[in-house]
Amino acid sequence: MIGKSVPRVDAYDKVTGRAKFTDDMILNKCLIAKVYHATIGNGVVRSIDTSEAEALDGVVKVVTFKDVPDHCYPTPGHPWSVELAHQDVADRNILTGRVRYYGDDIAAVVAEDEVTASRALRLIKVEYEEYPVEIHPRKSMRGSAHPIHLDKKDNILARSNYFIGNVDQGLRDSDIVIKRSYKTPIVQHCHIENPISYAYMENGRIVIVTSTQIPHIVRRVVGQALGIPWGRIRVIKPYIGGGFGNKQDVLYEPLNAFLTLQVGGRPVKLDVSREETFCNTRSRHAIEYDLTAGIDKEGRLIAKDMTAYSNQGAYASHGHAIAANGLTAWRLQYACPNIRGEAYTVYTNTPVAGAMRAYGIPQADFAIESFMDDIAAEIHMDPLEFRRKNLIQGYYEDAFLKPIAANTNGIFECLKKGADYIHWYEKRKKYENQTGDIRKGVGMALFSYKTGVWPISLEIAGARLALNQDGSMQLQLGATEIGQGADTVFCQMAAETLHMDVEDIHIQTVQDTDVSPFDTGAYGSRQSFVTGTAVKQCAQLMYEKILDYARTLLPREKRTLSLDHGWIYAEDTRVLSLEELALESYYSLTNSSAITAEVSTQVKRNTIATGCCFAEVEVDIRLGKIKILDIINVHDSGKLLNPQLARMQVHGGMSMGMGYGLSEQLLLDEKTGRLLNGTLLDYKLMTTMDTPDLTADFVELDDPMGPYGNKALGEPPAIPCAPAIRNAVFHATGVAFNENPLTPQRLIEGFKNAGLI
Amino acid sequence: MIGKSVPRVDAYDKVTGRAKFTDDMILNKCLIAKVYHATIGNGVVRSIDTSEAEALDGVVKVVTFKDVPDHCYPTPGHPWSVELAHQDVADRNILTGRVRYYGDDIAAVVAEDEVTASRALRLIKVEYEEYPVEIHPRKSMRGSAHPIHLDKKDNILARSNYFIGNVDQGLRDSDIVIKRSYKTPIVQHCHIENPISYAYMENGRIVIVTSTQIPHIVRRVVGQALGIPWGRIRVIKPYIGGGFGNKQDVLYEPLNAFLTLQVGGRPVKLDVSREETFCNTRSRHAIEYDLTAGIDKEGRLIAKDMTAYSNQGAYASHGHAIAANGLTAWRLQYACPNIRGEAYTVYTNTPVAGAMRAYGIPQADFAIESFMDDIAAEIHMDPLEFRRKNLIQGYYEDAFLKPIAANTNGIFECLKKGADYIHWYEKRKKYENQTGDIRKGVGMALFSYKTGVWPISLEIAGARLALNQDGSMQLQLGATEIGQGADTVFCQMAAETLHMDVEDIHIQTVQDTDVSPFDTGAYGSRQSFVTGTAVKQCAQLMYEKILDYARTLLPREKRTLSLDHGWIYAEDTRVLSLEELALESYYSLTNSSAITAEVSTQVKRNTIATGCCFAEVEVDIRLGKIKILDIINVHDSGKLLNPQLARMQVHGGMSMGMGYGLSEQLLLDEKTGRLLNGTLLDYKLMTTMDTPDLTADFVELDDPMGPYGNKALGEPPAIPCAPAIRNAVFHATGVAFNENPLTPQRLIEGFKNAGLI
Repeated sequence: MIGKSVPRVDAYDKVTGRAKFTDDMILNKCLIAKVYHATIGNGVVRSIDTSEAEALDGVVKVVTFKDVPDHCYPTPGHPWSVELAHQDVADRNILTGRVRYYGDDIAAVVAEDEVTASRALRLIKVEYEEYPVEIHPRKSMRGSAHPIHLDKKDNILARSNYFIGNVDQGLRDSDIVIKRSYKTPIVQHCHIENPISYAYMENGRIVIVTSTQIPHIVRRVVGQALGIPWGRIRVIKPYIGGGFGNKQDVLYEPLNAFLTLQVGGRPVKLDVSREETFCNTRSRHAIEYDLTAGIDKEGRLIAKDMTAYSNQGAYASHGHAIAANGLTAWRLQYACPNIRGEAYTVYTNTPVAGAMRAYGIPQADFAIESFMDDIAAEIHMDPLEFRRKNLIQGYYEDAFLKPIAANTNGIFECLKKGADYIHWYEKRKKYENQTGDIRKGVGMALFSYKTGVWPISLEIAGARLALNQDGSMQLQLGATEIGQGADTVFCQMAAETLHMDVEDIHIQTVQDTDVSPFDTGAYGSRQSFVTGTAVKQCAQLMYEKILDYARTLLPREKRTLSLDHGWIYAEDTRVLSLEELALESYYSLTNSSAITAEVSTQVKRNTIATGCCFAEVEVDIRLGKIKILDIINVHDSGKLLNPQLARMQVHGGMSMGMGYGLSEQLLLDEKTGRLLNGTLLDYKLMTTMDTPDLTADFVELDDPMGPYGNKALGEPPAIPCAPAIRNAVFHATGVAFNENPLTPQRLIEGFKNAGLI
Repeated sequence: MIGKSVPRVDAYDKVTGRAKFTDDMILNKCLIAKVYHATIGNGVVRSIDTSEAEALDGVVKVVTFKDVPDHCYPTPGHPWSVELAHQDVADRNILTGRVRYYGDDIAAVVAEDEVTASRALRLIKVEYEEYPVEIHPRKSMRGSAHPIHLDKKDNILARSNYFIGNVDQGLRDSDIVIKRSYKTPIVQHCHIENPISYAYMENGRIVIVTSTQIPHIVRRVVGQALGIPWGRIRVIKPYIGGGFGNKQDVLYEPLNAFLTLQVGGRPVKLDVSREETFCNTRSRHAIEYDLTAGIDKEGRLIAKDMTAYSNQGAYASHGHAIAANGLTAWRLQYACPNIRGEAYTVYTNTPVAGAMRAYGIPQADFAIESFMDDIAAEIHMDPLEFRRKNLIQGYYEDAFLKPIAANTNGIFECLKKGADYIHWYEKRKKYENQTGDIRKGVGMALFSYKTGVWPISLEIAGARLALNQDGSMQLQLGATEIGQGADTVFCQMAAETLHMDVEDIHIQTVQDTDVSPFDTGAYGSRQSFVTGTAVKQCAQLMYEKILDYARTLLPREKRTLSLDHGWIYAEDTRVLSLEELALESYYSLTNSSAITAEVSTQVKRNTIATGCCFAEVEVDIRLGKIKILDIINVHDSGKLLNPQLARMQVHGGMSMGMGYGLSEQLLLDEKTGRLLNGTLLDYKLMTTMDTPDLTADFVELDDPMGPYGNKALGEPPAIPCAPAIRNAVFHATGVAFNENPLTPQRLIEGFKNAGLI
């Protein structure tokens, strides 16, 4: 079953509209909640008057920052830890009177219907004391009279660094030293379904149905936010319309839980609008990089240095983990004896940055891979050859993250496939000396990516299987289907190990923390690797339990038993159907015991997926317009579990990567920090019209670490397209842009500066 | 925790209206289904025209008996068996063209709303060929030109008998032989919530949310009815508003499942009206008994003979199991060397009889206990003394149901308590020679009752526990809360064995066959006994797993560990809190594994609960009116799990028993079999105004069979009140009624015949 393009198990329901998302499950007579957002970018609420809102007919409750528990809680979807050092930064309350960005949450209204809730919001009167707004990390870290968070006087959330060898000495020993700075924009996930939840009480406990990637983590964070035992919270996750990391954060669930408590446990729905999703949920960190490299005459990296400044926005969320992940990437790709990395994550008065597909690597990769091309250009070397020369070869063991040890040779095969596809050498030569307004170029970029979060954080997954009366199987996981096809590959895994048909594995797609095995959820491209390990172990356990029971039914059978597609075999002979066995297990008057299997597994392994993008572009210099003529991603993600789904993942990631390279950015007002283009009309996502044909290819190196030879594939496709396009534009025009996206404005400005127009 | 009157875990939610029943969970845009019922009592549909109904705006689908799968299926909530002999009678389709009773299901309409569905029903045109109607079993078993079911020419669904000793010889050896006949009425459960369900499809499977006692059995029966693999069906059971056995039958779930299939998986709701609940669901079997007993001079039973004729109505449902259970009761109470029992269950053209609280024993007990008083009167013996003389003493082992072996001495203590309470001897004497229109009397009746269904059928139960991060526990069962308080006592059981507080056990009250452990559900007073055994085993397993994990955290601790109220103790010292242990199990970077425990247990034990009712009545002879002056039930149900809940069970059962004795009966038109009083206005349930103060008392003999010393208590309270009242009326007036209920009409007639008026 592994390696087959099995149709998605949820395909039919999603296409026909049968699939039930949070809003399809809302209870009748659900109250509606809406949030009152700050209209300044920095300051404090001096007074708030809710009396008119409360007097409005149909308003059930108005709460303000004065009503919420006064302790702080963390929001990121990390596994948590009993060790303080591994716990996330707790820096926010459910509502706040200390406004830290334009749009901060000050109050909330609960009303009988949506119109009344909206009207009530407009009746709330707030007076502020305003402070100056700072939206740039390098300026914010100089400190301010009113630190954004009191315990961080210099507004630095965190700083970290590492040293390998001696970078200063390495740079001195180099034949050439190159310095560049790069910058990436704030972008947003733009999942189809905005965050939405509803909450109510049952038997003294709070139930939250929410569009999340991480139900078990939501349970913990709501407990922390409200200061109540975690066992008193129940989180249910239906189908969700995408998350891309935004729903790997605990966004409005604590407020929703708090509100149902305020209205005697009545159901309260909190439906986050698209505009709120842009402004008040999470975005990808804008990061600025200062990079330095020392090269010898042969083009070998002798020393490399990275300093990163990450714009966290107003609250910690995933915080420094993002910039730190980029620092790690600085090591994982190119061999170099002397490496230094340093990163600052800085609070500013902007919307909050958090997790987004590939978690800091698209930023670092844009900088690193642009830098690699810039170095190659500087030393007049083919950028692909320069990379090949410097890539880590063979078996890699990371100095700081010991358990990460992997054969990274797959990248060389990826590069070969990509270069062949795009006719690299031919076109690099062909487009060398162009003139005129329309010029073509080819560019590429590569990446490497860890699989899951071990050893930086915990990896744990659970699985339960139950044999049905008809010989089919129920599969229950705490891991989540978030649109990526997880349910389908989990069914394939169970079918593979149990020697069954995929159609006979019925997966429980809704997670419910009261009954689903514990798993931290969908992020870090971890599930097929980590949860996959639990599924495999659970299926192996079930397989053994079935044969154990078969032996009780066949006491005289001395041959070796096995299970294959609905039959128990004694060596090569069918001796019992699985259905008969299952019926006996349920209904035998002498020997019945329904057969289930459950595991909870800590996975202490990791491995590295790699890949690359090759792009050919045509640049209209006077229009500032880039047309992508051809583009391919080639991935070494180990054995493909489902080639069709793998291709879909790559296509989606490429679309996100192209948007990152070409058009997507959230713009802020310098003075107030107010979001200027937080709507789908103004924020330029890639559309079908903008998107060329996408090609996805794979190198299927079997990896001994993954349960079925598989490695990370969910996030990586989003990484390399932006720098590949930037490098293609560089090839076409000779202009090295150091900031994405390559919008017409930026291109025109760059071409003007370069004297092309 | 066991033996404490812990408040119900669902009390707050049920009192405040928070608790969610099926109708509270209905999905938006649910289609509405309604059933077209036959308007003749016996015959066949010659033609059916649905064209006008189909043409009505808002009608989505009309189906008739011609559209449904043509194989038959069984409906009773029995565990099923792989052995054909243990399977229930499959004698019905989802819809039928062969009308077997007035109201039989011929067609169904699915519409956008309720009004349209009702209008569409009225547009369906049916032509019948009518056959003669027979509603009496003794007549029906003579056979008819058109047998109700083709394979039963004589309309006898089943017949069974047994012989112990030699009854004919025993009667010949007796000093006196007494014969009597008794008769019981059709009554209905009258649970507050009518049957209701909705069904839809997800991922190619059918989901049914339904008000049932037996979700796992509904799954099986729907699979059988539709002829699809059982694993493709998912049944969810929310809170339900009572069942009393009516929801131990698979009523309209197969039709509902079929209808969602007909409309492409859209949600379809099937809300059964009160009138339909009376006519088209199930009722208690009316049974007629011919009893004979031979007595020696000392008043000892030498021989006894029972022949029972049970009115099954039009379909098999639970069928002969009811009458057979009464036959068994004929053995379990009074010692006698020669016993014969014979029972016929007969199809008639009446609404279908099925399971109802105490499953055939209220009928048999009315006959037997009336008979005991009639014999005692005949031989001029005090009826209590007569019983004491003949009751089985000490340890009883049943001849036919070997595993039933129990100490039945509790009944003697019950009798003593009851007699003392009612001042038996004083009042029997005082009321001996009354005259005038107002007379008083005291009467009593006793019973014995098995606990669960082993060894007649399978007993299996499952349980799963999961340790939460806060040290609290999730408890999952396939057993169902149906209003009886099951969730509460299961929490007490788990708390008891885990040495925890009840508040720290969070029970999953909604059963979902996809995720709930397998259990056959609520019936036969089995759950506290059978499921309780699974809960105990599961809690013991969890206890051991917690200590095992504690040992990994305390490797140097050599003392014996134990768990008590949130702490791990090493001998008498607290060494670790359960919360710390739980957090480590979830989040330790070195040693994490979420702790769960699951068992599936076959229980091969049974035991006998006993009890009695003593009642004092005042009879107004000219008005035909009985006033209950005082009434007490005394039960030996072993150790009480929760005395408060136990009293509630007894009160509810006594109300049902008094209604059975005084006022409840479903009346049928002789000619058509049409139900004449199937509404809550015409059917006379006991109201608060009719009900005297109820007294419940207990004899708590610890029973080694039950997991916590407990025995059946759910059903027994409904058994003895009716015969106790009948016997009190006999004592008051000297008139021995042989049919219940003792309505004014029946009393007046009886008193007239006796010359009292």
